[in-house]
Formats: sequence, C-alpha cells, structure tokens
Amino acid sequence: MSILFSLALALAQTSPAPAAPAVHAEPSDAIAADWKAIPADELLVMRLADGGSVVIRLAPQYAPRHVANIRALAQTHWWDGTSVYRVQDGYVTQWGDVSEKKPLPHGVADDLPPEYEWRATPLAATLSRGDPYARVAGFSADGWPLASDGTAQWLPHCYAMVGVARDLAPSTGSGAELYTVIGHAPRHLDRNIALVGRVIDGMEYLSSLPRGRGEMGFYTDAQHPTGIVSVRLASDMPAGERPAYQYRATDNARFAAYISAKENRQPPFFTVPADGADICNVPAPVRKTPGK
Amino acid sequence: MSILFSLALALAQTSPAPAAPAVHAEPSDAIAADWKAIPADELLVMRLADGGSVVIRLAPQYAPRHVANIRALAQTHWWDGTSVYRVQDGYVTQWGDVSEKKPLPHGVADDLPPEYEWRATPLAATLSRGDPYARVAGFSADGWPLASDGTAQWLPHCYAMVGVARDLAPSTGSGAELYTVIGHAPRHLDRNIALVGRVIDGMEYLSSLPRGRGEMGFYTDAQHPTGIVSVRLASDMPAGERPAYQYRATDNARFAAYISAKENRQPPFFTVPADGADICNVPAPVRKTPGK
Repeated sequence: MSILFSLALALAQTSPAPAAPAVHAEPSDAIAADWKAIPADELLVMRLADGGSVVIRLAPQYAPRHVANIRALAQTHWWDGTSVYRVQDGYVTQWGDVSEKKPLPHGVADDLPPEYEWRATPLAATLSRGDPYARVAGFSADGWPLASDGTAQWLPHCYAMVGVARDLAPSTGSGAELYTVIGHAPRHLDRNIALVGRVIDGMEYLSSLPRGRGEMGFYTDAQHPTGIVSVRLASDMPAGERPAYQYRATDNARFAAYISAKENRQPPFFTVPADGADICNVPAPVRKTPGK
Repeated sequence: MSILFSLALALAQTSPAPAAPAVHAEPSDAIAADWKAIPADELLVMRLADGGSVVIRLAPQYAPRHVANIRALAQTHWWDGTSVYRVQDGYVTQWGDVSEKKPLPHGVADDLPPEYEWRATPLAATLSRGDPYARVAGFSADGWPLASDGTAQWLPHCYAMVGVARDLAPSTGSGAELYTVIGHAPRHLDRNIALVGRVIDGMEYLSSLPRGRGEMGFYTDAQHPTGIVSVRLASDMPAGERPAYQYRATDNARFAAYISAKENRQPPFFTVPADGADICNVPAPVRKTPGK
C-alpha cells in the first residue's frame, strides 16, 4: 500500500503527534473541479530492486533543458541497473551511476545553463509572509511552490523536491545524478541548484533507506546500495500499467482558505496559531486519479 | 558506527549534493574551550531491539516538570519492553506504550502545566532574521535553539527535537509518549506542545524505520513495531558504559562567525548566498567527548 506523502503530510499537520490515534478528518476543502490531470510525460516512475516504486512529477516549465535530459535518460533506459548510492540523514537521498563513468546517451548535454531562477511571474496563491530565504512565497496555478525576492523567482528546496546533483560551480549537472530532500528544507540550496521536480508518491522508499556510513552519507563498500530496476516516463509505459495523478489547482478561493488554515491552526488541538507558515509547511496536494 | 547527526548535517550544509564524493573539510571554527560537558543526568540513552542506540539531550531548564517525569520513567524502567509504534513519513517517529494502558509510576503526574513558552530571556547568539514563526531566533549559551516574538520565548520544532505527545488541549502529556521530528520542521507545533530535548546521536535509528501504514503513520497489526530494550539516564549507567557528550558554547565570536557562514554560503559551490537562514538550518553542534 502506498500513501501519497503530500496527503499524509497534510493530514499530519491537522493532527500533530497525539498520544492516541485520534481521528481528525481532513476538511473537504477542495471540489472535484479543483483536481487536474498531470500530463503523463511529466510523471517519472522509478522501480527499485527492493520492491519500492517512486513517482516524480517533473517541472519542465522551470528547468526545460535539465528535464529534457532526464526524459532522454529515461527513454534510453540509462538508469536501469544503476543505484541509490547516497542517503545522508536529515538531508538527501541521491541516485544514478555512482561511478560517474557510464557514458551519457547521445544528445544528453552535460554543460547546461543554470536553470536555477527566472524573472518573477505572478503567483496564483500567496502566503501571508516571506521567510529568511524569500520575500514572497506561494504557488503557481498548477501547484508548484515558488519563492521570490520580488525580481527573481525559483523553486524552494522543500521536502521531497528533486534536484540535479552537480560538482562545483559553474557545473549545473546533467540530470543523470538526482537527489531528493529527506529532512528539513535546505533552503540555502535555492538558486544554487536546478530543481526539476518533486516526489509525489513512494517518498518513503527513498526516505527510510539505511543511512550511508561514508562521508556525506555515501554508502561504503560494506553497505548495499538499493538497485534501480527501471526509470520510465509514464507516457512511455503501456496504458494498462501507466499511473495517473492529479494536482490541486491553486487559483481559487478554496486553496486560499487551505493556506489560511495552515497558517492558523485551530483548536481543539492548537491553542497558539502561528499567524504564518513557511512555504514548505503548506504542501501542495497531489493525488492518484480516482478510479485509475 | 554512529555518526552525530548534527555534525553530519553541518558538514552536509557546506557540501550539498555534489555528484561526486568531493571532500570539503569543515572549517575548524571552534576551539577546544568551546566544548562543554553535557551533564550525565541530561542524557537519555534508548536501546532498541534492532541494535540501534539513541541518545537524547534533555532540556530540564525549559520543561522542568515534563523532564522530571521523563527521569522518573527512566529510573523505574517504565519504557523497557515498550515500542516505537508510529513513523509518519516527513513528520514524526513516536514511541512509548501504544496501548496507553500501562500504569504510570507513582509520582508521575499526567496533568502538568503547559511548559510550551516562557518570558523571553537574552539570547547568547542571534540570527540575522526571524521567520514566519518567530520575530527573533538564536541560541542559549549552552546550545539550545530558541525562538521568540519579543515577549515570549520557546524551543522550535527543528529536526530531531523531542516532544511530548498529547491528546487535545488542555492535555500536555505525561512524557511517557515521546516523538521526534524526522522531516521538515513542523514549526506550527511551536508553543503548542512541550519540547523536552533533542536527539544528539543515533537519529538514523528513528528516522530510517519503516513508515507506518496506518492512519497518521501508526503501525498496523500487520507491521512490526521496533521494540525498546531499555531507556536510562546516563547518570544511572555504570561508569564504564556511560556515554559522554559535549555541546558547543554559543556565547563567543567564533559561534557568531559560524552562524554567519551558515547564512551566507560561499563559493566555489554556492553562487547566490541567502543572506539569512532559518533557525533549523543552523544546527547547534554536539559531539562525543573526545577520548571517551
């Protein structure tokens, strides 16, 4: 059974750590029309040798060149037989070819422009406050968290966001080596690394792996990396196996109310509402398409 | 082998997610005199049935009644034979008596005052900025992260902080059921729950456990909770087995420089310094006492 981390997190945030498994139903704050299909060519499905299956939503609109590489890597089955080779507690899980010697497919460039930030565009939904890393934070209409200093705009390094590992600047990474955030949001990485998507299902298969004992959480020779069986775009999978997901549209009053509820938690559990939230504590909901 | 999460995290934050395991030495920004012993009666050692060992630094100065309960529970061996029964991805791991029927020892009260916040006291070290949850954030001289609105002050819910699970308000919990943060800091819990300490070693044994498949991450009947073999105060352990740890003093110019370095990451990896940080991205270092 696989639980969508975003929904579980949303639930968690209305029901924090009680001693008993009390039931607090999540308010039905979205209507059917708020749920929109994620295109199948924006879904990356990674199957792990331990049986886990991870689904990543890609963000081609924000990192087009890096996502183009990632699609080409998936379509040439480049990741099949590679591994999850780094798990650093409270920080990141990283995967790809640990040897860094596997040749990239023809047409996959390794000297891409730094798709780290872009000119600020209007947000569909905005939080009440910024934070130490952004003057303004909120969401695109299609559910991506965004941060801005008023001029530039970027994706924030929230839990489960997926980024492109790289060497020292000016390298931007090819997209062959990817990581996801498994701890507190390392927001200082914002604007310094290309974020290309977010894990929307199966996050626990990356976050609960044994931690690497080597420097920076790399596995040592005595440890066993988790094998990657395959990575495919959903659009390249047979119709019968293809997963389908929906994002929640943010450009409506119901989502504004959802943000407000996250910023001001209510009794009976909460007695002191925060009157604000950071962008990573307002997860944009995603769900499996009902009936699929 | 056990890696201090705080040091690993500090290292991680100077060396984020490169493709290759490049070595970036952590600057030697502390002198020997900056390291101070943590009293043995503020160290709680939890041994798990899977071989893991977790060390928690207690904060009796901030939650004296709850910590008094926790000490009494350890001294009466109350947790021995209980379990880690809840692991919610991106949120918390929780342990104690899942049945909630085990009687509390004589003298352990279950109707404690809400030790959630107190009158603001001067900080020994201060961050450049607040965040959506606090006007001011920084550290006590002995290494506790603190947040404040200028009037009240509290411990923030950073990664690895340990809190007291409770039912709905006005319950504050006895301290028998504890949790630790394993994902992004759920800062909306600040001022709404008693925080009593922080995991300073063995965090990976709580953060990498299989996620619970039940509601809010509770284990289902088909899953196997991790047993708790024993929980002891280090001061109650035989001298030969007693672990020893040190915190890094924060009331000096070297720690101020450490904060500044976290707020403004430098080339060659970083090209855009954030000019700020949230309190949970500036971990207060703790280490094993050298030679012990």
